[in-house]
Amino acid sequence: MDSSLHAAPAVPAGYGLETVVRHTYERTRTDTSGALADYIPELALVDPDRFGIAAVSVEGEVVSVGDADVAFTIQSISKAFAFCLALEVAGREKVLSRVGVEPSGDAFNAIVFDAETNRPFNPMVNAGAITVSGLLVEHLGADALDFVLDRFSAAAGRRLVVDEAVFRSEAETAHRNRGIAHLLTSAGALTAGVDATLDLYFRQCSILVTAGDLARMGATLANIGENPLTGTTAFAVDAVRSTLAVMFTCGMYNFAGNWAFDVGVPAKSGVGGGILGVVNRQLGIATYSPRLDGRGNSVRGIAAFRELAEELGLHLF
Amino acid sequence: MDSSLHAAPAVPAGYGLETVVRHTYERTRTDTSGALADYIPELALVDPDRFGIAAVSVEGEVVSVGDADVAFTIQSISKAFAFCLALEVAGREKVLSRVGVEPSGDAFNAIVFDAETNRPFNPMVNAGAITVSGLLVEHLGADALDFVLDRFSAAAGRRLVVDEAVFRSEAETAHRNRGIAHLLTSAGALTAGVDATLDLYFRQCSILVTAGDLARMGATLANIGENPLTGTTAFAVDAVRSTLAVMFTCGMYNFAGNWAFDVGVPAKSGVGGGILGVVNRQLGIATYSPRLDGRGNSVRGIAAFRELAEELGLHLF
Amino acid sequence: MDSSLHAAPAVPAGYGLETVVRHTYERTRTDTSGALADYIPELALVDPDRFGIAAVSVEGEVVSVGDADVAFTIQSISKAFAFCLALEVAGREKVLSRVGVEPSGDAFNAIVFDAETNRPFNPMVNAGAITVSGLLVEHLGADALDFVLDRFSAAAGRRLVVDEAVFRSEAETAHRNRGIAHLLTSAGALTAGVDATLDLYFRQCSILVTAGDLARMGATLANIGENPLTGTTAFAVDAVRSTLAVMFTCGMYNFAGNWAFDVGVPAKSGVGGGILGVVNRQLGIATYSPRLDGRGNSVRGIAAFRELAEELGLHLF
Amino acid sequence: MDSSLHAAPAVPAGYGLETVVRHTYERTRTDTSGALADYIPELALVDPDRFGIAAVSVEGEVVSVGDADVAFTIQSISKAFAFCLALEVAGREKVLSRVGVEPSGDAFNAIVFDAETNRPFNPMVNAGAITVSGLLVEHLGADALDFVLDRFSAAAGRRLVVDEAVFRSEAETAHRNRGIAHLLTSAGALTAGVDATLDLYFRQCSILVTAGDLARMGATLANIGENPLTGTTAFAVDAVRSTLAVMFTCGMYNFAGNWAFDVGVPAKSGVGGGILGVVNRQLGIATYSPRLDGRGNSVRGIAAFRELAEELGLHLF
Repeated sequence: MDSSLHAAPAVPAGYGLETVVRHTYERTRTDTSGALADYIPELALVDPDRFGIAAVSVEGEVVSVGDADVAFTIQSISKAFAFCLALEVAGREKVLSRVGVEPSGDAFNAIVFDAETNRPFNPMVNAGAITVSGLLVEHLGADALDFVLDRFSAAAGRRLVVDEAVFRSEAETAHRNRGIAHLLTSAGALTAGVDATLDLYFRQCSILVTAGDLARMGATLANIGENPLTGTTAFAVDAVRSTLAVMFTCGMYNFAGNWAFDVGVPAKSGVGGGILGVVNRQLGIATYSPRLDGRGNSVRGIAAFRELAEELGLHLF
Repeated sequence: MDSSLHAAPAVPAGYGLETVVRHTYERTRTDTSGALADYIPELALVDPDRFGIAAVSVEGEVVSVGDADVAFTIQSISKAFAFCLALEVAGREKVLSRVGVEPSGDAFNAIVFDAETNRPFNPMVNAGAITVSGLLVEHLGADALDFVLDRFSAAAGRRLVVDEAVFRSEAETAHRNRGIAHLLTSAGALTAGVDATLDLYFRQCSILVTAGDLARMGATLANIGENPLTGTTAFAVDAVRSTLAVMFTCGMYNFAGNWAFDVGVPAKSGVGGGILGVVNRQLGIATYSPRLDGRGNSVRGIAAFRELAEELGLHLF
Repeated sequence: MDSSLHAAPAVPAGYGLETVVRHTYERTRTDTSGALADYIPELALVDPDRFGIAAVSVEGEVVSVGDADVAFTIQSISKAFAFCLALEVAGREKVLSRVGVEPSGDAFNAIVFDAETNRPFNPMVNAGAITVSGLLVEHLGADALDFVLDRFSAAAGRRLVVDEAVFRSEAETAHRNRGIAHLLTSAGALTAGVDATLDLYFRQCSILVTAGDLARMGATLANIGENPLTGTTAFAVDAVRSTLAVMFTCGMYNFAGNWAFDVGVPAKSGVGGGILGVVNRQLGIATYSPRLDGRGNSVRGIAAFRELAEELGLHLF
Repeated sequence: MDSSLHAAPAVPAGYGLETVVRHTYERTRTDTSGALADYIPELALVDPDRFGIAAVSVEGEVVSVGDADVAFTIQSISKAFAFCLALEVAGREKVLSRVGVEPSGDAFNAIVFDAETNRPFNPMVNAGAITVSGLLVEHLGADALDFVLDRFSAAAGRRLVVDEAVFRSEAETAHRNRGIAHLLTSAGALTAGVDATLDLYFRQCSILVTAGDLARMGATLANIGENPLTGTTAFAVDAVRSTLAVMFTCGMYNFAGNWAFDVGVPAKSGVGGGILGVVNRQLGIATYSPRLDGRGNSVRGIAAFRELAEELGLHLF
């Protein structure tokens, strides 16, 4: 079989990756619509005008434009990486006995479980992500956070830390997530204890990253688990494949189908303002712009990804 | 960017596509679990033991094992091709104003609409597929069926026909689909009339195909709309890309996430016993085995696809 | 229990029923909020300012104020009487095998069925009322409409007729109800045929009544089935009791609990502008005012009933 | 309306209340179907064969048969009385701003809130009852439990106490209720703190009562708040009326409509095995038999109430 079609460069001849990223940045930067997340005070205090794009290829090309080195909390983007780690640590079978991999059409904070299995629909909604954190605590105990930080750091290529102020704010105010954790415990999907699980979950969501970090982490996924810049293995090969599949079908919540239709790459967004996209075997791409649309996705991030997908021919199909 | 990873042959060195398909056929043929669809008498009368697999590559390689030339009704597999045609005929914008592209986590015959938009969730559930048929009737009037048959035939590389007995049975008994069509009309998603729309929808579902036909139709999608064996263009390029994306996220109903996780190729199944998978830029693969599991998917078809995906490395990620 | 005790006058000594009704009429007539139903042209053409109240006691006292003799279509108020007749004709057991008696918290036109039983939740929502009409057709065939008209007329004390223009409009435009009827047929709750059933249902909803008629019909229910003015028996005793119970728990749709809390009598409203209340063993009360609130209930009708309940001490508890 | 008329004896001439209750007891005692609640160990340890019936009239007649003096935990029956107290303490307007009065068709432990108002549907499901406990804590602080115990005791005519072992078990295991309380806090329906609210809620559910106590408490409601045996006022008149209305429409969860249809009196059941029915202005009736049906209602309790309703003509209509 001739797969030469796949060998076509994602970037049209004559336009380097950096040129396309830079043009995309310029064309989308003027959109100041959307609003900062404000459910905790820390998120409402960031500079709303920040905007950065970074891309890292599996061959080691690095592109960085605008505020690509400004730190923000990873928030829900952590769900994809934590799921990848849980597959490695707890094993595929156990993970799938606790959380499904079906898109649900629901919003990120839905409390609906799959009626047939009594499991959360998938690891990208809060209920499923809390279940995943519970699996990490169940298997790693008090070492779970260090394990998460080590692996995330290996993927980012630098030592990542938790924003303790954001963590405390999340932990103090998240009655909805605490409610979900108790319901998960009642349903048997969570056995590691509500407090220990949420402690890991909120800290994992409060890890500080830059667009550059996320692009490197995405390139690590694109490179089947090995950081292409450092050569360090951060994730298991099989787990990466499964993670990318779930990111593609469920990563953008109730916008996932539209994203798959228009942009066509596995992705994950966070209310901190980041969006991560992975072009399999090719690129990690990340945007940072903290003004969000009504679904909680970064406005300029989505615009930039649409344009990059068009210009670079990123769509899977 | 080096995409040489994509250039890897899907079939391991030393094992031709035909060898793998044949081995898969032998290993999965012994499973006689599942039951025939019986909601209309015609479907309950087929020979339950039939089992065939066919594969067609974009370079024109054709593999055919077992009952790959036995005709059966295409049923829901037609939804993918009809959606592709509606995108071409009615235009992307109009199609998306009537039907979403979000997976819903619901069963194929769910009557739930997206509460936010009052549209069916996606074109792969019955409500969305009926909406798509309505768009074809709205734009093509009485010529809609001929148009569908012409294009399906161009993709299959031979003249396809409707099984009139199945059509009449479907039309007489389908109170649920008729109910859905009236609700769609009431909601404004369907404007072409319930009777004319369902007439097209039931006929389109009653088109007779073989596993060989479906494999050629799949290869046509894999080849961006052009039948690789005849050189005839059956589908528009842009519409093919969108169709594959929706097949990937929504094609297997409330099993779509599991399929994406395990098999990882755009696919569509029908209660007639067929399953179609598309390996982008490479292959169309089809199975026929009429015993279904509780979700309405062919038991041996799913088993065969799992094995083919493993052996041929078909997974998108 | 000696039920003659229930015959105690609802009006406190010193204030006749007529005085209270007249005062209520005067105090509530100035409210012109709300809007006419407009889903069929005929309903949008009525005089929005019409307002009438009528009350009839089981001893034969008749009170009539304002436009109590203006005819309008009975609409959903017919559901209560049709359910009462179905209990008599088809028997309690059969009726309950097809339709539940549980309030559902849903709106009148919800398409949700009880997941446990696959029946409509209760006979006061459209799905349940269509099921009830189907039972009448199943048992009475072509005579069903005459039977309904005869009994409704016996309760009203004069010959009632169908507004054919409203009937035709309803029948032509009601895709939602037609959809529901097909879904009911598919679920096995409706066996009398969609067309024959909806023909009865739409005609039954298009019967012309006045507030005076409804008050007499309500007094007939209050008098356990016997029209207190004519002595004619219109409904079976056991069926009346069951009907009043279901009116109390389900009669006002997703406003039923609030109504039970505030007004506290069995009641039923229709989008034609009527509301009927029954004070068991004492009174039938009806209002007519066609401007509706967002739930489809008459604005002045609800205001009048709240005041009458307060002034006359109608609350069951 | 002269309510002295309501004081008519519920028992037909020639059959005393005691005779009917005794006959009912004998006819229903042989049914040993159903199973003990077992979600906490204490409930699974009770003697499953216990069966008692008690009735108290507003004139002071007391009937007691079988194990009417055996103590068990009041469980959900407390919801009715707590709602009555919240109406008095927090006022009708505030209570209704936090919890609805609409039946929802849902099971007792549903986590669904009214989408329109973001409130629990009604005070008889757990979510609503927890909201009610929160209102009592909000208004009474640390005195809330003493207030509840005082009033419940006044209605029962003897000092009631909490079963501390059951309370501790409830508090330790109730992840579902804890989850609901956090979700209520997140939704703004609960402001008194999860721990303090659940502490009251679980204690209130763990109050020990006998069938005789419940019959006296029911007679107190039937007597508009005044214990007919002691003359002590336990509940406010207006609150009693509202409570009886909500018990009638929502008291038996997703069995409420059937109960209203068949038995026709305001009622409330608990998983401890008790059922309380109130015949307005006439009787309090209570049964105790701890084997439950699939909905969590006492099997013999329901059978006894059906028979008592028939024999004594209790139905409201």
